Amino acid sequence: MSVTAAKGFSAAGIAAGIKENGNPDLALVVNNGPRLAAAGVFTANRVKAAPVLWSEQVLKGGQVSAVVLNSGGANACTGPEGFQDTHATAEKAAGVLKGHSAGEVAIASTGLIGVRLPMDKLLPGIEKAAVELSVHGGEKAAIAIKTTDSVHKTAVVSRDGWTVGGMAKGAGMLAPGLATMLVVLTTDADLEPPVLDRALRDATRTTFDRVDSDGCMSTNDTVLLLASGASGEVPEYDAFADAVRTVCDDLARQLIGDAEGASKDIRIEVVGAASEDDAVEVGRSIARNNLLKCAIHGEDPNWGRVLSAIGTTSAVFDPDRLNVAINDVWVCKNGSVGEDRDLVDMRYREVRITADLSAGTESAVIWANDLTADYVHENSAYSS
Amino acid sequence: MSVTAAKGFSAAGIAAGIKENGNPDLALVVNNGPRLAAAGVFTANRVKAAPVLWSEQVLKGGQVSAVVLNSGGANACTGPEGFQDTHATAEKAAGVLKGHSAGEVAIASTGLIGVRLPMDKLLPGIEKAAVELSVHGGEKAAIAIKTTDSVHKTAVVSRDGWTVGGMAKGAGMLAPGLATMLVVLTTDADLEPPVLDRALRDATRTTFDRVDSDGCMSTNDTVLLLASGASGEVPEYDAFADAVRTVCDDLARQLIGDAEGASKDIRIEVVGAASEDDAVEVGRSIARNNLLKCAIHGEDPNWGRVLSAIGTTSAVFDPDRLNVAINDVWVCKNGSVGEDRDLVDMRYREVRITADLSAGTESAVIWANDLTADYVHENSAYSS
Repeated sequence: MSVTAAKGFSAAGIAAGIKENGNPDLALVVNNGPRLAAAGVFTANRVKAAPVLWSEQVLKGGQVSAVVLNSGGANACTGPEGFQDTHATAEKAAGVLKGHSAGEVAIASTGLIGVRLPMDKLLPGIEKAAVELSVHGGEKAAIAIKTTDSVHKTAVVSRDGWTVGGMAKGAGMLAPGLATMLVVLTTDADLEPPVLDRALRDATRTTFDRVDSDGCMSTNDTVLLLASGASGEVPEYDAFADAVRTVCDDLARQLIGDAEGASKDIRIEVVGAASEDDAVEVGRSIARNNLLKCAIHGEDPNWGRVLSAIGTTSAVFDPDRLNVAINDVWVCKNGSVGEDRDLVDMRYREVRITADLSAGTESAVIWANDLTADYVHENSAYSS
Repeated sequence: MSVTAAKGFSAAGIAAGIKENGNPDLALVVNNGPRLAAAGVFTANRVKAAPVLWSEQVLKGGQVSAVVLNSGGANACTGPEGFQDTHATAEKAAGVLKGHSAGEVAIASTGLIGVRLPMDKLLPGIEKAAVELSVHGGEKAAIAIKTTDSVHKTAVVSRDGWTVGGMAKGAGMLAPGLATMLVVLTTDADLEPPVLDRALRDATRTTFDRVDSDGCMSTNDTVLLLASGASGEVPEYDAFADAVRTVCDDLARQLIGDAEGASKDIRIEVVGAASEDDAVEVGRSIARNNLLKCAIHGEDPNWGRVLSAIGTTSAVFDPDRLNVAINDVWVCKNGSVGEDRDLVDMRYREVRITADLSAGTESAVIWANDLTADYVHENSAYSS
């Protein structure tokens, strides 16, 4: 059901010819109102793609009437010409959709960096997509934004008369702030942009910002939340925020589960931290340790590499009070050898690492993947 | 010639049985004076192996009469018992060598983290090594400290009547502050500990601290510089510091050239930086980008991944003024597409990336490796 699960939205996904293999590559999501409220969060990378720079401006107005998303090219590092391409895309969508303003059309792109988009294919594609707009178009839109994703990702939560739904793409370059992802969430709840903004930031902070497949931060990350108000319902903030968080958490978990070349999903829980920031810093350091990621791939409960990663952080801890469990076996106690590592069963895809800093009561969960020969292969051959 | 190139030193390398495969695993380096001056730098990891904690104490006295190094076990994360093992090793060496004090015996260990050393093999090994001490023993000592190294690493510089020589080991877990390495440098110059300390820190800051094979910081890194004074020469500081830097640079380059699973050595030069710190931060960010490392492995001049890595730093730059060359072809100009990427010839092992921040006149060079399926294989099978 994706972005069309909530009332007031139509969507389409088509093959515009941007991808040379003829796969779907252009998605259109339209908010039919009555409200056009929106919020967005974007990559923290200082090298931002043209569509990110454009959409950041659009979101300042708090109104989004339509989103054009393309795979097959990131339109990043393409200079002023690339920005003009994004501008022209918004103008084209506004013209085709009648009554829309380019200043309320958000744009998102994904694919190879440093290559101009084939505008001779993209612009006609918008006309084609507009014709196919449908309240059942959510799945097709989710399919059209895939790059190296093996499956499309959608999630929906319905509560008392209102719904939050969404779609996501992302398989590599997943790292905090945000991951390499495009996400569009929609709701028919009747809410103002500041409320949407708060709920979206609360949700992404503990979901998309805490997945880290390969430590690489993208130039194109975009998460949008559009509200149509079509349900006529005005939910309480806490209920709405919880629904947004649930959808984001579901989509984030799907991203990790489909990360490039991965054979293991690693849930890293840091407990006993003096602060949440400490817990997140330690979790990310563990998540990014290539040697540990290789060990997990080899089903080797190499807790020494966990301690080595913790040791590079500025978090509060005493090395002699660190405890580490892998799949609930406390293989490291008080910074030294704990329970028998042969007790750790690592046959399953999900691996749980618990790092206890023994320094407080705060905690955080970071999701990561193992490092595999398939990841190397996929990313050494990507652009060639 | 290694650590015995300088006058006043003897060394040995033997198989003590610490490694189950029977390969050499214990090295002994003895300073026969007349001077016993020494300096050392150690890992910045807050989780430090027992031998690092021990040797840091020893070095505070500025006197080192002997160094015992073992491969086959890191003696890290082994608790108070592991520290007692290190202490017993120093006591044993002092006893065997006559006239030595345990407080002047430095210890260095390398191998798997979280496993106690087999002291029933290590201690008799020290007696065996002492018998084999020789002024020609430098090569054997260098061989005995290898772990996954495919070759042993030595370097020597001789100037006006004095010499600096050394040996190094390290193949994985190479990252700044320092890399996973054990290094012993010796000189017969007649210098005080503060001078040695200054020269050693000056040298490591721009050599060992600027290699980054896999972003992982070790628990055991140790670089020692021992001076015997046996040449009777007192060199000028600049000449001595230059010799130490030359030996460190040579050994650091050998470490990168032998990094686990690597097929490419990547020289990353950041120029046009507002400060040296900026240049180092940007260089390290590029060096640690897994996606870029995969691309280099695939001989793909994927400059977008360089920009993406630069964008995650706090360095001074304008995204629209970034320039990137790969093997001297400026594939990115002003943050956008530059010269034809097909002009880049990446067939050779050494790949040169130049990142111009257009923000100043400072620069730095960081050495890194590509990311390969062999790296994954070697590190997923290491302890099992």
